Formats: sequence, structure tokens, C-alpha cells
Amino acid sequence: MKNKEKRIFLDYASITPVDLSVAKEMTKIQKDFWANPSSLHTEGERAKNILEEARIRIARILHCKASEVFFTASGTESLNIAILGICREDVILGTKPKSDFGFALPHIIVSTIEHPAVLEPIKYLLKEGKAEVSFITPNEKGIINPDSIKKEIKENTVLIAIQHANNEIGTIQPIQKIAKVIREYKSTRTLLVQNKLLVGPYLLVDASQSVLYENVSLERLGADLLVLDGIKIYGPRGMGLLVVKTGVKISPIIFGGGQEGGLRSGTENVVAVAGLAKALEIATKKREKESKSLTKLRDYAITEILKEIPNTSLNGDLENRLPNNINICFASPKLSAKSGFQKIDSEFLVIKLDTLGFAVSAASACHALSLENGSYVIEAVSNKECASSSLRITLGRNTKKSDLDSFISALKKIVK
Amino acid sequence: MKNKEKRIFLDYASITPVDLSVAKEMTKIQKDFWANPSSLHTEGERAKNILEEARIRIARILHCKASEVFFTASGTESLNIAILGICREDVILGTKPKSDFGFALPHIIVSTIEHPAVLEPIKYLLKEGKAEVSFITPNEKGIINPDSIKKEIKENTVLIAIQHANNEIGTIQPIQKIAKVIREYKSTRTLLVQNKLLVGPYLLVDASQSVLYENVSLERLGADLLVLDGIKIYGPRGMGLLVVKTGVKISPIIFGGGQEGGLRSGTENVVAVAGLAKALEIATKKREKESKSLTKLRDYAITEILKEIPNTSLNGDLENRLPNNINICFASPKLSAKSGFQKIDSEFLVIKLDTLGFAVSAASACHALSLENGSYVIEAVSNKECASSSLRITLGRNTKKSDLDSFISALKKIVK
Repeated sequence: MKNKEKRIFLDYASITPVDLSVAKEMTKIQKDFWANPSSLHTEGERAKNILEEARIRIARILHCKASEVFFTASGTESLNIAILGICREDVILGTKPKSDFGFALPHIIVSTIEHPAVLEPIKYLLKEGKAEVSFITPNEKGIINPDSIKKEIKENTVLIAIQHANNEIGTIQPIQKIAKVIREYKSTRTLLVQNKLLVGPYLLVDASQSVLYENVSLERLGADLLVLDGIKIYGPRGMGLLVVKTGVKISPIIFGGGQEGGLRSGTENVVAVAGLAKALEIATKKREKESKSLTKLRDYAITEILKEIPNTSLNGDLENRLPNNINICFASPKLSAKSGFQKIDSEFLVIKLDTLGFAVSAASACHALSLENGSYVIEAVSNKECASSSLRITLGRNTKKSDLDSFISALKKIVK
Repeated sequence: MKNKEKRIFLDYASITPVDLSVAKEMTKIQKDFWANPSSLHTEGERAKNILEEARIRIARILHCKASEVFFTASGTESLNIAILGICREDVILGTKPKSDFGFALPHIIVSTIEHPAVLEPIKYLLKEGKAEVSFITPNEKGIINPDSIKKEIKENTVLIAIQHANNEIGTIQPIQKIAKVIREYKSTRTLLVQNKLLVGPYLLVDASQSVLYENVSLERLGADLLVLDGIKIYGPRGMGLLVVKTGVKISPIIFGGGQEGGLRSGTENVVAVAGLAKALEIATKKREKESKSLTKLRDYAITEILKEIPNTSLNGDLENRLPNNINICFASPKLSAKSGFQKIDSEFLVIKLDTLGFAVSAASACHALSLENGSYVIEAVSNKECASSSLRITLGRNTKKSDLDSFISALKKIVK
């Protein structure tokens, strides 16, 4: 474009820019420590040191052991390793043969509003007849009731996958209460059935969206597996994290040179690993202050939008909500019935706002495929109308009150 | 270290430094095009354009369609997708059910000297009873005879995996002749058996090591699947390439948002993708000149070492060899029998040379695990003695004749 136009980015849940000091750190590592960390020579050892130092720095923040920290290439890959690696036949069938218990399939419990990177590998297992699955529906605020998980746990439950905060509506789940339900189940059940040690149930928590605003230490959450993603925390691209607590039975899904303790083969991306450690340190340092200021901005914008734009409602919960997440339905079910107001299409809003200089999202950028049917997350917590007439507005480190004022003005222009 | 010591890096097969213009390009993209390419807004579209432009730039070099180019996070991941994605049950069993033909398992043909990123996923399939495998032994120069592949092809052969050049001994395989064998087999066989279309045999070529020195266009090689890796071509870390010819039946191994045409979910690493395109363009431009100059240096060093150091021999073939690869056995089977010379341990040599300022490799850096049993590649082409008493010396863009002279002097000091 010829004239450098002023743009306002309000889609930080889809991706964040790389923090300047993270970028600087990565440039330095790329220049000075570019060798293969598996090499025996000094150059290799130096690269290995950067890698292992980063593991220790991350473990310190997440309150786990460095040996429990595994580097992958994305949050999606981390989640796939966790799900497919735990439900792999040689892990599960080895411990619970069909002949012994009358069941051979691993059982998974998952919420219906998880990210596609959780739902798709689970659907694959289901389709292939490699797992049975209980899908848990959230309440109308998007919150999972720990009791609904409790009801579904059975002897062959190996995995319970609940995201810490939803990527579309920002709802924060009661992970600690869910962990408690699992702990209580484990404490009462027989560990050995016919001399076979039972596997799980393990709690897998995707904390990609929450780590900027919440303490996601394994200790605090009570998770057995935790997933983070560089692109969501002002960090490197192509870098995911998987924390696996010692003792969790898990197999690799990619095979080769045996890097990352054999769980994830492929030459380690030392540059991005160092960048991830740095990004996580910065996020941890900024967490409290950033949460407070964004919560203020968020609540201001929500109040203004609901007041100024007719027939709007908030998707998700106001209380248990990410400080940076606003998700508005433009076909409020309560109001539209009375007024006969037509719903406004999500994609129309995104494109119209884009032409006015604002970057927001219809649902989630994580679906490369089209959103023909709207958002399954919003449909689960609201209705079909809202699913295809909602906007996700997500704030970030650079968002100012004046940006939100301009945004609300633009929105009023479009909707009126 | 306090005094900046002069080090000479001769391990370019394990990894290459990032080219300065590649680094510059990536810094620019990271700053200006950091959005999620799946987003609908302008920022997303701009990132998407970088991604798709890179795909076109790469396709132009490899003589394939842009839609055949898939980005992954490493050569290892690309190879795993190719192998596991083609041999997945729903692909293979769907086309050749056991009841129809008396066989259900996909059959793979692979050389015994492939990279672990090829051998390990294949061994996994074998162990799980999901494939049958024919292992092809190379001759004493490390070359695979196309006829030995021809003999093994049968109706359920779906995949033939042969690396273009070996990562340890640098042997260049007769890929074009192997492709011809496969073409000839395909032209004579019945495509439809009992109304089921047969899958493959597909030729998978790992060209990670050869692309700097050879034209690896799909047209020229006759490959159905081709793999490249950023770290081997002075390019980005955490970036692999998989080319899949239109019509090849393949399934994903990682599931989620459906990026990369559904074959590889996870937000695309636009920064590294642009870096890979740049690195490949530079490599293509420099290919001819670099091959010539490195071949000269290589042959000079080989001649000097064999002349100056007693009981040494060259592992692999001198004729069909990567211009940058030298692999020397320090327990020449021919000589040591006569002279009673003791073999010299690979790791001893690597560590001793390292203290003198030289970075070389015992076998390959791609095994994160220890090399207790020596190199399986050298054992396959030579003998057990050489397998654990060889050195891989690999040259790169910065290697000078004087570096090799210093290296040979150091080697003489250690060995004498």
C-alpha cells in the first residue's frame, strides 16, 4: 500500500508479534550458537548448553523438572504428541489387554469446546476405532463442571483434555477443581487390576491462551501434561512446549534420531528454544500488571459495546475470562426475538472492519478451512445465530484505550 | 572462554550456519509480516502472501507445482509424514483389503544406510505389524543397485525410500535409475485388481544432504516425494520441506486446524518459510561453482590424508560422492592385518581434534543417543573395525585450503 495507513490490531489471540528482546536474543543465538546440539565437539556442546539452560529456565517458571520439558514445533504438535502418544496401542494395550478386562480401548474425556488441535486427533482415534470418547458440554457461560467429568471417569480412562482458557470466548476453566476430581478418583481406585498397572487418567491442559495472564505452574494447576505455544506469548514461531510429568506413559509420534529424550526426534531448534525461554520469562514478569490493565480495558470496551450497539450480548463468562478477550454476539437471542433485528454475519463484520483499519476475528484463526458453519464453540455455549454472527476482539500489549474508542466508533458506523 | 580461539568447523553435514541474507530476510518478515496467515484481515492476508509466494519460489526451483510443496518443522518430520502418512491403515487397507488379495500390509523397500528419520518410523511400522519391509544392502562403495530394488517390488509395495546422498559417507545414489525401475514396473502391472486401485509404489527421496550440490528437481530425479531441511542449506532452523506429487495418496500424522492443505496442521511458520525459499534460491545459484571448488578441496584432502596417515582408507565411493564429504577409516582393513596396527577410536579422534580447534564428527550428529556400536552405515559398507574408527569431515562455504592443511597437520600429530 502506498500510504502507510494506521491499522489497529485486535486479534492477539490468533498470534502475537515477537517481543523485541526475544528477537534480539534469537538473533544472537543464531549467530553464535548455530551448531547441532547433538554434536560431540565444542560448537555442539555450546549449542547443547543453550538448549539445556532454556529447559531449566522454563522448568523454574512452570515448577517442574527440566527433564519434564519437551520442545516441539507448535502447540498443535504438542497436543498431538500428548493425545496420540498416550493413546498409542503399545502403551495402552500393553497395560490393559482386552482379554483381561473386557475392554481394550483407551477412554478419553474432552470438552466440546477444545481447540481443533485437541478435537481433531481425538476424532481421528475415534474414527479409527482406537479410543472411546466422552464429550463434555460446557454450561451457557462456557464453563465445564468438574462433576460432569467425575461422572464420566472409568477404569479405562487414560486422558482428560481440558484447555485452561478457551481461544474463542476466553473462558477460564476450573482446572484445579478438575485435577482434584481426578486425584480423588485415583486415590480410591485399585491401581493394579489382575497384576496390570493402570495408566492414567492423565490431565492434559492446553495453557496456550492463558499463560500470559495466569500462573500455569504444574503444581498449581495439578496437570500431568501442559502445552504452551511460542506464537501466543510474543515468542518464536514454530516453537511449542510440552511438559510431561515424570511417570506419565507416553510414546513418540515422530521417529528418528531420538532427540528430546526420544519423545520428539529432529534436530533441536536451539534458536527458537532460547526465544521461548525468554518470552516465557518476560510474560511471567509482566503477568500481573498486564492482566490488571487489560482487564480494565476489556471491561470498558464490553460495557461500551453492549450499551452502544443494539442487540449485542457477551459470549462466555465475564467473571472467569481472559483479561484480553472480548467476544460479542450481534444477534442477541434475548433482544432479537422482540425487535425482529436481523443478525449480522461474522465475516461481513471482519471484512468491513478490516477496510476501516481494524484487525479482528470471526471465530478463531486456527481453522485453515472456511467457517461456513460458524463457530462450534459459540454454538455450544449460545445458539446457532450467535455462532455465525459474533466477533472476537482480543487485546495485547500495545492496545490503548483510544484504540478501543476508535474501534467502537467504527463498529457503530457499520452496525447502525 | 577468555581468549577467542581460532576454531575450524568441518562438520557442515550436521548443520550449516544461517546465511546472512537469509537471516536478514527472516528478520524483516518477522518484523513486518508476523500475523497468522489463516486470519481473514489484511495482516493475515499479507502473511499468507509471503507464505504462498515462498511456495511458488520453491516450486520453481524443484520443478513441481506450488500445491505440491508442504512446509513442516524438520527433515525428520517430513520423512515421518511421508512414511507414516502413506502406510496409514485407512490409506492402505482402504485400497487393498486383506480379504481381497490375501495381503493387507503395505510393503516398503528401504536401504540399510538410510538416515534414522527414515529407518526408525519404518522399524516402528514393522514392530507394530503395520508393514512388511525389504531392507536393501548397498555394495562396498555404499551404492544401491537398482536391480536389487527391482527384485523386491511386488503388488503391495507402496513405498521405496532411498536417500539421494548418504549423510555419513556422502555416496550419491542412482536415483534416476531407481525411478526408471519403478516406472517400468508400473507400466507393466495391472493397476486395478478386483476393482481396487493399487497405491504406489512411490519413490521417496531424502535430498537434504545433496541439494547444495545436485539438481534435485522432481522431474530430473523422478521422485514422487522429496524431502529437504533448512538446517542443511544455510537456512532456517525448525523448517523442513516435503514435496508430494499430485495424486499420491497420503494422510496427515498431526491433526488440527487443517493448515498445509490438511496434511500438516499447526500455524505456519511464515518467517522460516520465507527463509527457506531464500536459502534454496541462494543454494541453487551457488550450486555449480560451489560443487567444483569443494570437489577440488575434498580430493586434495583425501589424497593428502591417505598419503600422510598410515593405515587409512576412504569410506564410500570417490566417484559418486558429495563434493563436501570426506570419510576416513583409521583401521584400514587391508593394511592393519599386515602391520598389526591398532585401530583408533572415532570418539577419541573427535575429542582430541576438538581440543586442537577442529570440529568434526564420528558418524552423524543425528543420533542423539550414544554411538556405542559405531556407525551402522560404515559397518554396512566396510567392516566393524571401520565402523568405530572413522571420521566424517564435511566442508562448507567457508572452508579454505589452509583449513584443511592445518587439519591434516593436527591429524598427523594425533595419529603418529
